[in-house]
Amino acid sequence: MSHNSFGHLFRVTTWGESHGPAIGGVVDGCPPGLSLTEADIQPWLDLRRPGQSKFVTQRQEPDEVRILSGTFEGLTTGTPISLLIENQDQRSRDYGEIADSFRPGHADLAYHLKYGVRDYRGGGRSSARETAMRVAAGAVARKVLGMGVSIRGALVAMGGDAVDRAAWDWKAVRENDFFCPDPAAAARWEERLLELRRSGSSVGAVVEVVAEGIPPGLGAPIYGKLDAEIAAAFMSINAVKGVEIGEGFAAAALTGDRNADEMRMAPDGTVEFLDNHAGGVLGGISTGQPLVARFAVKPTSSILVPRRTVDRHGRDRELVTKGRHDPCVGIRAVPVGEAMMACVLADALMRHRAQVPDAPLTTRLPRN
Amino acid sequence: MSHNSFGHLFRVTTWGESHGPAIGGVVDGCPPGLSLTEADIQPWLDLRRPGQSKFVTQRQEPDEVRILSGTFEGLTTGTPISLLIENQDQRSRDYGEIADSFRPGHADLAYHLKYGVRDYRGGGRSSARETAMRVAAGAVARKVLGMGVSIRGALVAMGGDAVDRAAWDWKAVRENDFFCPDPAAAARWEERLLELRRSGSSVGAVVEVVAEGIPPGLGAPIYGKLDAEIAAAFMSINAVKGVEIGEGFAAAALTGDRNADEMRMAPDGTVEFLDNHAGGVLGGISTGQPLVARFAVKPTSSILVPRRTVDRHGRDRELVTKGRHDPCVGIRAVPVGEAMMACVLADALMRHRAQVPDAPLTTRLPRN
Amino acid sequence: MSHNSFGHLFRVTTWGESHGPAIGGVVDGCPPGLSLTEADIQPWLDLRRPGQSKFVTQRQEPDEVRILSGTFEGLTTGTPISLLIENQDQRSRDYGEIADSFRPGHADLAYHLKYGVRDYRGGGRSSARETAMRVAAGAVARKVLGMGVSIRGALVAMGGDAVDRAAWDWKAVRENDFFCPDPAAAARWEERLLELRRSGSSVGAVVEVVAEGIPPGLGAPIYGKLDAEIAAAFMSINAVKGVEIGEGFAAAALTGDRNADEMRMAPDGTVEFLDNHAGGVLGGISTGQPLVARFAVKPTSSILVPRRTVDRHGRDRELVTKGRHDPCVGIRAVPVGEAMMACVLADALMRHRAQVPDAPLTTRLPRN
Amino acid sequence: MSHNSFGHLFRVTTWGESHGPAIGGVVDGCPPGLSLTEADIQPWLDLRRPGQSKFVTQRQEPDEVRILSGTFEGLTTGTPISLLIENQDQRSRDYGEIADSFRPGHADLAYHLKYGVRDYRGGGRSSARETAMRVAAGAVARKVLGMGVSIRGALVAMGGDAVDRAAWDWKAVRENDFFCPDPAAAARWEERLLELRRSGSSVGAVVEVVAEGIPPGLGAPIYGKLDAEIAAAFMSINAVKGVEIGEGFAAAALTGDRNADEMRMAPDGTVEFLDNHAGGVLGGISTGQPLVARFAVKPTSSILVPRRTVDRHGRDRELVTKGRHDPCVGIRAVPVGEAMMACVLADALMRHRAQVPDAPLTTRLPRN
Repeated sequence: MSHNSFGHLFRVTTWGESHGPAIGGVVDGCPPGLSLTEADIQPWLDLRRPGQSKFVTQRQEPDEVRILSGTFEGLTTGTPISLLIENQDQRSRDYGEIADSFRPGHADLAYHLKYGVRDYRGGGRSSARETAMRVAAGAVARKVLGMGVSIRGALVAMGGDAVDRAAWDWKAVRENDFFCPDPAAAARWEERLLELRRSGSSVGAVVEVVAEGIPPGLGAPIYGKLDAEIAAAFMSINAVKGVEIGEGFAAAALTGDRNADEMRMAPDGTVEFLDNHAGGVLGGISTGQPLVARFAVKPTSSILVPRRTVDRHGRDRELVTKGRHDPCVGIRAVPVGEAMMACVLADALMRHRAQVPDAPLTTRLPRN
Repeated sequence: MSHNSFGHLFRVTTWGESHGPAIGGVVDGCPPGLSLTEADIQPWLDLRRPGQSKFVTQRQEPDEVRILSGTFEGLTTGTPISLLIENQDQRSRDYGEIADSFRPGHADLAYHLKYGVRDYRGGGRSSARETAMRVAAGAVARKVLGMGVSIRGALVAMGGDAVDRAAWDWKAVRENDFFCPDPAAAARWEERLLELRRSGSSVGAVVEVVAEGIPPGLGAPIYGKLDAEIAAAFMSINAVKGVEIGEGFAAAALTGDRNADEMRMAPDGTVEFLDNHAGGVLGGISTGQPLVARFAVKPTSSILVPRRTVDRHGRDRELVTKGRHDPCVGIRAVPVGEAMMACVLADALMRHRAQVPDAPLTTRLPRN
Repeated sequence: MSHNSFGHLFRVTTWGESHGPAIGGVVDGCPPGLSLTEADIQPWLDLRRPGQSKFVTQRQEPDEVRILSGTFEGLTTGTPISLLIENQDQRSRDYGEIADSFRPGHADLAYHLKYGVRDYRGGGRSSARETAMRVAAGAVARKVLGMGVSIRGALVAMGGDAVDRAAWDWKAVRENDFFCPDPAAAARWEERLLELRRSGSSVGAVVEVVAEGIPPGLGAPIYGKLDAEIAAAFMSINAVKGVEIGEGFAAAALTGDRNADEMRMAPDGTVEFLDNHAGGVLGGISTGQPLVARFAVKPTSSILVPRRTVDRHGRDRELVTKGRHDPCVGIRAVPVGEAMMACVLADALMRHRAQVPDAPLTTRLPRN
Repeated sequence: MSHNSFGHLFRVTTWGESHGPAIGGVVDGCPPGLSLTEADIQPWLDLRRPGQSKFVTQRQEPDEVRILSGTFEGLTTGTPISLLIENQDQRSRDYGEIADSFRPGHADLAYHLKYGVRDYRGGGRSSARETAMRVAAGAVARKVLGMGVSIRGALVAMGGDAVDRAAWDWKAVRENDFFCPDPAAAARWEERLLELRRSGSSVGAVVEVVAEGIPPGLGAPIYGKLDAEIAAAFMSINAVKGVEIGEGFAAAALTGDRNADEMRMAPDGTVEFLDNHAGGVLGGISTGQPLVARFAVKPTSSILVPRRTVDRHGRDRELVTKGRHDPCVGIRAVPVGEAMMACVLADALMRHRAQVPDAPLTTRLPRN
């Protein structure tokens, strides 16, 4: 019920504002006995960190995470894991205009209308800075899932320009500034972004997250469906406007004979799917196939183009967002999407274990 | 946490299998003093009911709902509202093949792998029949929201053939068999579906739900965002593979200057938006604009074309789904989508009242 | 969050009013594959059923439970189990006085002040009739716990007259009308109650519930402590005013050297406790010792003695409760207490499995 | 569901171990616009702080709380409030014996059997130090409740020696080292405790918490009863073994005519109760009378008397707890009990507002 928590058994609560003294999170329900130190979390944070290339916001801070509780001698103890990152880059500056005026496309007006009071500095609670804690929690979730599970994300389209799936190369993802699996697309995007930086505008993107090695049986009907949990998790990421699983919206254009995934027995006695339109989920439950999910990120609204808006006193205004400029927020959303997927899966695995403790966690048939 | 409940303060729990004695639901947390009888619920159920046109499944039953608790002398009392529909059309027939074999694209295999035991008759718990209870709960949620709120759905694409938005007519939605707002599209779809019925296949569709008259301030950061709640609610509907808000996936192809919605003050002192790319939600909080959300429904997998599959004994099989055939399950998903939207909004309204009891529920500025 | 649900993973929702058409409950989260039919539940309901002796309310109805979902061919399927009991004894009578006046000691006034509307017939939702559903859910919970766990309750004091613990005999509990483990006390209570029936008054009682065979490790710090869950579960039973674990309030009068339970290793390598002041819980976690908990039930307020009160119009009134008279509601609370304990333990077991799937569930040392 | 959170709408999560770098908490769901700074919280912490008299543990640290998020310019913003206290008194010492052996009456063994891994330093997560965060959260809850609500606690019995209720003086509570409302009892207790300190033993106590000024209508049937929430909240405090409301266990010894509280109309049109056996709650809902609840605290088990126990290697041991010695942990539980009551009431008030937004919050009749 808590507005700032997600997950049920693997439960993450985050707190903190962009320009407060710190941001943090609490991971509750983590199993005991997992090896966990800051070194397990920091590399994932470094992937998400701003200021790493010229294509993301230039906020410069190390984002160094500290574990304040929940581990002992390098092992999780089953008690809540408190994570904290101090905010260092709190430039003191005049927030006068932002304090009063509501940036179009931002949460400013909505917060004002809901709460009456808001911390306008750097977006306050609505800042993408909050996602650092998701990435940290995701690192813990990966520990819960274990080494057999791989969760990888990539940017698959930017501003309507999609990657060539035939050229997909996971290694390429870490070799360009865009988490792009297609080097040719990455080259085109670089050019495009340089142009957008000059014009002061921004562009949207699509992120794909693929989870492999997860057992069948995760998720549960009717309102705890795995894909519904993923949808909520992705849609809660800043600037996300759409979510899809497997074939997604394209499935709406298909006929039934083309969309359903046929099956046969593999030589090892497990079920082999001949296709994966479903994206690894049927009836809200994982089938053992790779989980494939995507989300659409809108172009950031903080652009250098003057826009019409209103202020808190009910006056018409024209506003130009100054300061840092992030031409494609979708880029940094890639590690965030991976982390959310990891958290959802860790939670679903724990729920499955609770209800079906002797579940075989395999597609081998006959089961009984 | 409950797998078969959704909502937090306005909380709906459903139960029942397709071919069990009954299906039902419990609405907990409903405010007291609302007028509510079966007559408030039945019309919405009648909209969803199968067997009404040649384009939906031919299961014939009245789906008559009974209220078993939670009202007194025609008013809600604040105690749980129990709703029940008896299953009448439980044809006794031989389920032999379905009992053993897993229909491609269905939840059969996933249930088997997760639970080991499953009620295979008519899909058991995974049957779309469960959605009748969502519709019933949605009728109660509309009471909570009050007359000022309008929630309407429509089918906006079928098999890749989209409506012409310039021709949108809400009245048309109730005048064809498809909840289609564009009579010309409806005529094309009719032809297409007749053909699909003959070929024994099926087709996907896209549903759009629009909520008007809702106050600003509903939804809350970070993990109780209104759009995240909608995403989970829609994705939990049978056969849904994608969800989007406002511009949705199309936003990923836009630049920031085109996507953000400018604002100005209206003569009555409220905020006027010059566009609604956001779909009525910013930072996870409603802005007072119309809420616009869509979901993609895959083509039903129960088709008359033989498909390769496996059975519970680990043998390769070929399967043809017999019996009722629903060429486009997306059609009946329209009232279900409306109902889920109503439930999410009722819940969000109650949560907002709890945290900000004196919230003005208007976009009038200055607020303070 | 739902007001009418309890439990987290083994989650029970109840609904229904005393004089509505039926009462019911939904058990969500139950593991699949457990054998379950009405015959597993009915005997527990029969124990609680009113009208069985002259010492409990004379409402006469069979309380026949029906399972409407969640089982298939005699096994649980992991989907929600819907339970329903039709109300048969809905005497049509004039509720005029009760409709307007608030019975002292009852929930009447509180419901009126909270909801404005209330079903006054037979106490509506606040009737002890609701506890039938707890007993039904408890029967399912016992299945989850398995045969190795024994949960037994007894009445240990009535009107200040306590049993002799030296004379405790579990067999006696089923052989008198009071669930009394001490035949001599039962004889005294019988006399006392006959007298109270004549005078039209009532008396309070204390119920003790003992659970044996439960593994160590159930419950979790800090707010999911096993004893805190038991306290809430017991306190939610009608007319309960106090709850204690192990030594309970008596511990407040002890010194530390007398209260702490010493330990030694048993020959079989498990931990042996030399005493059980703790009642089987330390730090909110079960130790493997018998769980011992008690709750105090106030005397029923529906008595034949005239009492001063007010009515909904703000007038002073004098009221005599007519109709059925239950001189000691504590008696029927015994099976209810057992059921609540069973539900709490089933839930705690499932939570423990989720977080520590490889927990040894024994006190054998060294564990690792 | 989270083990380390309590509350539903006013939701508190705590984290931290006794000898880790810090302890902390997150208050989520707090209404916006309340004035809140560290100065509102610190005085309550100072009341609970150890090392203040010779009768409580001598751990010496200032327990200075910092607010890390959720406020802006001195007002709450509706976003999560993060609270942090650094641990300063982390004496480096040899924990050898405690690391291996399980102290009788402590959570040591239970944690070991549940988690396999535990932070044994100072009791780790099971340390009473966690309650500092409850007190901090309680200070926020008092803000939510507003000035009209008074919540006060007192120690009403120590080691079986109860206060004289005729001599009750709330002013006295702050004038002795025991939160004792009866100066004569305080004098007796002082003597008793000096003696216990010499003998190295400890003693139990009973705490009473009284809340005045709360409106009727808080709490909800059936499993969200106000008294059930209080019972869980109190039972979750370290060393608590019993909870009671109003007459409590004494009600079990009363007859119905003596226990029910008669009512009449007061001159101002509100309901006047002639007694308060119920302790302010009927049917789980507040009646507007003072809420009266008590809890029993066992004697601390950390005593200087040698005790028989076992170690993690399965060996019999004899153990003497060294270090700080707290002869009556019940004393410091008084501000903790107040805080838990405040949190439960704030949560119940928010839930009531959500479901019945136009509830009159008074006992004035006729209501409608």
